[in-house]
Amino acid sequence: MNVLDTSLLPTAADIETAAKRLFGVAVRTPLINAPVLDELLGARVFLKAETLQRTGSFKFRGAYNKISSIPLERRRAGVVAYSSGNHAQGVAAAARLLGLHATIVMPADAPRLKRERTAALGAEIVLYDRDTQDRAAIAKKIVAERGATLVPPYDDPLIIAGQGTIGREIVEDLGQFLLEPEIVVVGASGGGLAAGISLGVKARVPAAKFYTVEPEGFDDTLRSFKSGRRETNARTSGTICDALMTSTPGELTFPINRELIGAGMTATDTEVAAAVRYAFHELKLVVEPGGAIGLAALLAGKLDVKGRVVVAILSGGNVDADLFAKLIT
Amino acid sequence: MNVLDTSLLPTAADIETAAKRLFGVAVRTPLINAPVLDELLGARVFLKAETLQRTGSFKFRGAYNKISSIPLERRRAGVVAYSSGNHAQGVAAAARLLGLHATIVMPADAPRLKRERTAALGAEIVLYDRDTQDRAAIAKKIVAERGATLVPPYDDPLIIAGQGTIGREIVEDLGQFLLEPEIVVVGASGGGLAAGISLGVKARVPAAKFYTVEPEGFDDTLRSFKSGRRETNARTSGTICDALMTSTPGELTFPINRELIGAGMTATDTEVAAAVRYAFHELKLVVEPGGAIGLAALLAGKLDVKGRVVVAILSGGNVDADLFAKLIT
Repeated sequence: MNVLDTSLLPTAADIETAAKRLFGVAVRTPLINAPVLDELLGARVFLKAETLQRTGSFKFRGAYNKISSIPLERRRAGVVAYSSGNHAQGVAAAARLLGLHATIVMPADAPRLKRERTAALGAEIVLYDRDTQDRAAIAKKIVAERGATLVPPYDDPLIIAGQGTIGREIVEDLGQFLLEPEIVVVGASGGGLAAGISLGVKARVPAAKFYTVEPEGFDDTLRSFKSGRRETNARTSGTICDALMTSTPGELTFPINRELIGAGMTATDTEVAAAVRYAFHELKLVVEPGGAIGLAALLAGKLDVKGRVVVAILSGGNVDADLFAKLIT
Repeated sequence: MNVLDTSLLPTAADIETAAKRLFGVAVRTPLINAPVLDELLGARVFLKAETLQRTGSFKFRGAYNKISSIPLERRRAGVVAYSSGNHAQGVAAAARLLGLHATIVMPADAPRLKRERTAALGAEIVLYDRDTQDRAAIAKKIVAERGATLVPPYDDPLIIAGQGTIGREIVEDLGQFLLEPEIVVVGASGGGLAAGISLGVKARVPAAKFYTVEPEGFDDTLRSFKSGRRETNARTSGTICDALMTSTPGELTFPINRELIGAGMTATDTEVAAAVRYAFHELKLVVEPGGAIGLAALLAGKLDVKGRVVVAILSGGNVDADLFAKLIT
C-alpha cells in the first residue's frame, strides 16, 4: 500500500472555504422533493439537482474551487485537465470566468454534446484513444511544456472540497424542513463527489449513512471497499454511464470513502435507463445516465429506505439528444 | 358587456389563505436561475419551475385550493372538471388526496400522456370531440345528475387564488437575493395563471410589469386587451401548445388581467419548439410546449429585458415522449 500524506486530505474547514469561493458563482441547486417518488418508495426522498449546476453537472464546483486557488503568477500559463466530459466543461467554464486558458484532454469517444459544449466554453481540446493512450500522461506532458496547472478530475483536496459544498447545502436545505439526511446514495467513479459530499454531510450529521452506486462491471469502488485496497476495473468502456468509467478509486478519495462510506452497490444499464425514463416522465428532469445511477438504485429497490429521509444526487444532465430520445421512447 | 359581480374577484387575502391550505401539500417549486440564460439575455432571469409541481403543472394549486374548500356534506358527490390535460391531472390528484371521486371531461385528442396520467390518478374519464361538442355543457350535465361540484379550469376565485400562490413564492424567493421582479412573462389560455400570479406579485410589488404570451392564432387575450372586451379565437385546434387553446379569456380572469397586465404578445410554434429544445439542452428541464411559451418569448427577443430582473413561468412539463424526442433531435 502507498503511504499517504494525510495532511493532503481535505477537511470540513476546506469545504467552508470552498463555499465562500463559490458563493454567487456556482448555482445553489435546489433540493427537489417529488411527492410521487415519496409515495413510490415510502420514504422522504430529496434529489440534489446538480443537473441544474453551471455546465450541467457538479464538476463546476471543484473546478472553480481549484482554479480560483491558483496563485496569480501561475494563472497566465493556464490550466490543463483530462475528462470524459463533465469535468471538461466544469474546468472550461471556471477557467473562462477567471480568465485562464484551458486545455482539455478528452477521449475521442466522449459524447458529442460534451465535446461541443467544452469547445463552446472556449477550451482547447486534445483528443486521445481511451483504449490505447494514457490521458494522464498526455496531460502531464502539456503541463511540463507550458507550465500550466493540472486540474485533476477528483484526486485533489481542492476538487474534493468543492464537491463537498453539495453536502453542506443538503444539510442546510433539509434543516429548513427540520430534517436531517439519514441515507445518501451517490454515484462513484473516481470518488471525488462521494468523498466531498460525505465529508460535507458528516461534518454536520455524523450518523448519515452513505452508499456508492457504480455501473455493473465498473465496481472498482465496491470491490475496493471489500478488499481494503484500490481495485481496478477490467473494462474501460461499455456502459451507458459514460461519466462513471474511471478505472480505479483515487489515492485521496479512497481513504475518505473507505472511512466515511464503506458500502456500495451496482446498477445495470437497464436499471439506469429506467431511472432516466422515470426522471423524464415523473420528475420532468433531464438526467444523464451516470447522473441517474443513485436514483436507479432507489427505484430498483436495492436499499431498504422505508420511512427514512433519503437523498440521491442527480450529478449531471449532459446527455446527447439522440440517446435521450432513445431512452425515453 | 356583462355586469360582473366584483365581490367574486379574488383578493390578496384569498391568496394568503390558499398558501396556508397548500402548505406541505403542494411542492414549493424552485425559482431557478441559470447563468447561461442570464448571459444570453443580459438580464437576471428566474424560471418558476411549476414543471416540478405535483402532477407536472401549476394546475394542482388551484384545484387543491378549490376542492379543499368544498363543504364536507357536499364532498361525497365528488367533483367534475373539463380539461385538455393539466387541469385534469391537478383535479384528479387533489381529489384523490382529499378522498373525493373525480370525473374528468377530456377532449378525445388530448395528449395520450395526459389522459393516461389522469386515469392513473383514479379519475373517471369522459371523452368528447373538441370540434363538435361543448365540454362545459357535458360537465354541467354531470353536475346536475350527480350533485357533484364543478371545478372550473380558471374562472373561479378559489382557482385563481390557488395559482396566485406562485406569485407569492416568486416575491419571497427573489427577496432572498434582495431582488424584486421587474418583468414577468406568463402564458395565457383561460387566464387563471396570469390573473393569479399578477395578483400575487402585485400585492407585494405593484411596479412589476406583466406580459401574457399566447400561441400565434390563439391570441384572444391579446386582442381582448386591445379591444377592451373578451374576444374569441377562430381556431379550436392547431398549435403544439395543447395547454393554451381555450377560445376566450375568462369572465373573472379578464377584468383582473386587463387591469393588472394589459399587455401581451404571441409566439409561433417554431419559437416554442426552440424554447423546449433550449430547456432540454441548456437548462436540463423537461417543459411542455405550452409551458415554455414565456421562455420562448424571451429567447425570441420579443421584449427588451436588458439589465432587468425577469421571471418566466415554466407552467408545465407534461409532454408525450414521442413529441419531446422529435422536438429535441
